[in-house]
Amino acid sequence: MKYGVVAFPSKKLQDLANSYRKRYDPHYALITPHMTLKGVFEANDSEIEELAKNISKVTNQHKPFKLQTTSISSFAPVTNAIYFKVIQSEELLKLHQDLHHESLGSKAEYAFVPHITIAQKMDSGEHDDIYAQLRMTGVDHEEIIDRLHLLYQLEDGSWTVYETFRLNGAEN
Amino acid sequence: MKYGVVAFPSKKLQDLANSYRKRYDPHYALITPHMTLKGVFEANDSEIEELAKNISKVTNQHKPFKLQTTSISSFAPVTNAIYFKVIQSEELLKLHQDLHHESLGSKAEYAFVPHITIAQKMDSGEHDDIYAQLRMTGVDHEEIIDRLHLLYQLEDGSWTVYETFRLNGAEN
Repeated sequence: MKYGVVAFPSKKLQDLANSYRKRYDPHYALITPHMTLKGVFEANDSEIEELAKNISKVTNQHKPFKLQTTSISSFAPVTNAIYFKVIQSEELLKLHQDLHHESLGSKAEYAFVPHITIAQKMDSGEHDDIYAQLRMTGVDHEEIIDRLHLLYQLEDGSWTVYETFRLNGAEN
Repeated sequence: MKYGVVAFPSKKLQDLANSYRKRYDPHYALITPHMTLKGVFEANDSEIEELAKNISKVTNQHKPFKLQTTSISSFAPVTNAIYFKVIQSEELLKLHQDLHHESLGSKAEYAFVPHITIAQKMDSGEHDDIYAQLRMTGVDHEEIIDRLHLLYQLEDGSWTVYETFRLNGAEN
């Protein structure tokens, strides 16, 4: 089965992201707006209980973090995906790194660029048009994320939450 | 904000439900297949933390329960919704009742008929056609549900998981 770990931002930021995703993201109906902390990985039923325990160990060591967005950016030309850029921070990097520890199986495939996707799977012309419109838009938002979710994917591509993990680490 | 409490069945049962929902349920893209334990209720940000605590008290007193389906049924003529009928049990009734305790705000609007919706919002002719096809179909499935999820609704109608609660009650 396919799993992933994400943070869902507040309703306010999700509603804003969906106002774009509705038109520009074919994954719109498969999952609500999110920031991925651990991309798709495979695990079977017996492995996942162990993995969930290890994720919980990680979230117990991390405290709630600030999710701050300022602008819209794009991964083009690597991939035609447009996103709310989330400001990188040491705590986010460390959280991402800990979620890719060897006790959690999969290694990170890419450098971690925290983001909330709002448009993807467009051809280059379409991408360039939309990005030209959106890149000047500010997305001035700040909130505290205090939990992560472990999800699994159904056959139709949609995602269901398996478990929620509070970021329980002591405040510094 | 609108909240609800549901149980998501296993991937296997969700995939089966989605094979129908894809065609017959306009809520298909808004939420993955689920059994509602506490229907839509309103709460603000300060109330929800208290409610979540009280839900957690309930789930800590209940143990994992058996979800068993055998057949497809319909709520017509009350409403044109077709569903996997979930066998009623004392523990399910008690769980539903506890989730409608006064410390949890809303009372149950209807008698509790545990079910997983697979078709809805059809006109009567459409409903009767589809139900005639499906009512003879067996849905012979049994599994253990060991967690509930508290969800909130976005402006576009889709649902995001806010928190997961393990059914932590001691085994009898």
